[in-house]
Amino acid sequence: MRASLDCYPCFFIQTLRTARMVTSDEKTILQILHEVSTTLQQIPFNVTPPEIGREVYRIISRRTGVEDPYKEVKDRCIREALSLYPELKRSVESSEDRLMTAIRLAIAGNVIDFGTDSSFDLEQELETILSQDFAVDDSQEFREALKQARNVLYLADNAGETVFDRLLIEEMDKPVIYVVREKPIINDATREDALLSGLDKVSEITSSGCDTPGTILKFCSDEFLETYRSANLIISKGQGNYEALSDEKRPIFFLLKAKCQVVARDLGVENGSIILAKTGKL
Amino acid sequence: MRASLDCYPCFFIQTLRTARMVTSDEKTILQILHEVSTTLQQIPFNVTPPEIGREVYRIISRRTGVEDPYKEVKDRCIREALSLYPELKRSVESSEDRLMTAIRLAIAGNVIDFGTDSSFDLEQELETILSQDFAVDDSQEFREALKQARNVLYLADNAGETVFDRLLIEEMDKPVIYVVREKPIINDATREDALLSGLDKVSEITSSGCDTPGTILKFCSDEFLETYRSANLIISKGQGNYEALSDEKRPIFFLLKAKCQVVARDLGVENGSIILAKTGKL
Repeated sequence: MRASLDCYPCFFIQTLRTARMVTSDEKTILQILHEVSTTLQQIPFNVTPPEIGREVYRIISRRTGVEDPYKEVKDRCIREALSLYPELKRSVESSEDRLMTAIRLAIAGNVIDFGTDSSFDLEQELETILSQDFAVDDSQEFREALKQARNVLYLADNAGETVFDRLLIEEMDKPVIYVVREKPIINDATREDALLSGLDKVSEITSSGCDTPGTILKFCSDEFLETYRSANLIISKGQGNYEALSDEKRPIFFLLKAKCQVVARDLGVENGSIILAKTGKL
Repeated sequence: MRASLDCYPCFFIQTLRTARMVTSDEKTILQILHEVSTTLQQIPFNVTPPEIGREVYRIISRRTGVEDPYKEVKDRCIREALSLYPELKRSVESSEDRLMTAIRLAIAGNVIDFGTDSSFDLEQELETILSQDFAVDDSQEFREALKQARNVLYLADNAGETVFDRLLIEEMDKPVIYVVREKPIINDATREDALLSGLDKVSEITSSGCDTPGTILKFCSDEFLETYRSANLIISKGQGNYEALSDEKRPIFFLLKAKCQVVARDLGVENGSIILAKTGKL
C-alpha cells in the first residue's frame, strides 16, 4: 500500500509525539520537525508508509541520541499484557471456539500502538473486540490453511501485543517462527520484547533483518527471505505489516484493527474495524 | 499567543484540507505540502499562529491560482445561517435574558470554522451552547462596560458566524463598527460576506486592512489602528483573533469556543469550552 497524502501531516504528529517522549527542549523538537520537513521533500512519496516512517524515526533518534524512545513504554505494555495473560488464557480455554477467541484476542492486542495514537484503553478494547463483527472475515479459509500447514510464519507487530500473539500461537498447535524487527522502531517488537513476552516458549523467534515499522521485503535479510518464501502459512499482524505487504502476490492472512483512515480506506472498511483477511480477497 | 509546536502538524492538516477543496491533482497537492515544509523552516515559529497561517494559505492560493478556496463554502454557510435567523431572533426575543442569549448564539456561530475542523453540526451545536456553562464568564463586566460604552468595535471571525453576530449587535443597542478581513483567508469574513449577512443594516462595516486569519495589529492599516485605539469597547470573536490579540494590554472581551488544544491550554480551559473573557483576567 502506497503512502497517502494524509500520511504527510501524520508523520509530523508522530514526530512531535515521539520527540516529546525523549526531550522537553522545544528548540530541539523544532529542529527535528524541520529536518522531517526537509526529508519529506527529498524522499519519494510513492512508497509504503513504513519506508518513510523509518527515516522520520531515525531523525528523532539521531537528533536526541535516544535509539529506542519507546523502551519504557514497551516494557510497561508487556508487563501489563503479561498480568492479563492468565485471565485471557482461561477465557480462551472456556470458550466454545477457542481458535476464534484467540484470534480476536490477538487483534485486541493490536490496539497497543504508538504509531497511530497513544491513547487506548486496553481492557475496554478487549471487551469490545471480543464481541465485534469482523469487517472482513476469512476465518474459514484460515482454518483450512492452518489444517494443511506444516509450519506458520508469524509477523509480529507491537511490544505487548506479543503476549496476545502467544495465546493464538498456543491454539494453533503448529511449529511457529515468530518474526520481529531487527532494531527498535516505534513500539514494534524486537527479539528482546518477544523474549520478555515469553514467545520463546511457544515459537522460534527470528528477525526479519529490517528495521522499518512494517516488514518491507526489500530491506529484509536473505536468511529471512528464504524463510518467508518457504513458509506454508503467513500471518501478518498490524497496520505496519499490512502497509508493507498488502501488494504481495502470495497468500498472507492479515490480522489487524484498522486504526487510521488511510489503511481503512485501502481495506475498504470503516476505521476501527477488525479484520482477518487473506490477500487477494480484499 | 505564540504558536505551539502542536501547530506544526496542524498547518499540514489545514494545507491538505484546503488544497483538496480546490484541486484533486495529487502532484500539485504534494508540491504545496513540500512548499509549506520549506516555509515552516524559514519563518520564525515564535510568532502568533495567524501570522504563520497567512503564509501557508498564500502558498495554496499561489500554487492553485484560486484566491478564495472557501468562496462557495462561505456562501453556503451564510445562506444556512440566514435561514436560521428568524427562528434565532424569536428565541432571543422570547428569552428572559436577551443579551445573554444573543451572546451564546454569537458563540454558537463560532463553530463555523474551517481552520480547525471542517465537520460540525450547526443545529446540534446551537442546542448545546444555549445550555452550556461558560468556562470563563466575565459577562457582568461585559454588561457594565457595554452600559458605559458610546461605541463598540466588533472584530468578526468567520463567514456565516456573521449572521449570529448580527443578533448580538441588535441586542447591544450601540453604534457598532464591524471589522472584517481585507482579503479572503480561510473562511474568515470579508466585506462581501458581511454584506451578504446583512451586517450593513446594524453596523458600519470596515476592514482591518490585514489579511491574516486573526487581527494582527502590525499588519493592520493606520486607519483601522486609529479606530482600534479610540474604541470604547472591543469584542473579539473566535480563535484567530484571540491568538492575535491575547497579549494586548488594553481591555478586550473575547467571545469564542475553544476548538483546539493549543488555544484551550492558553486559556486554561478544556477544549470545547465556551468563553466570554476580558483580557487581563484570564
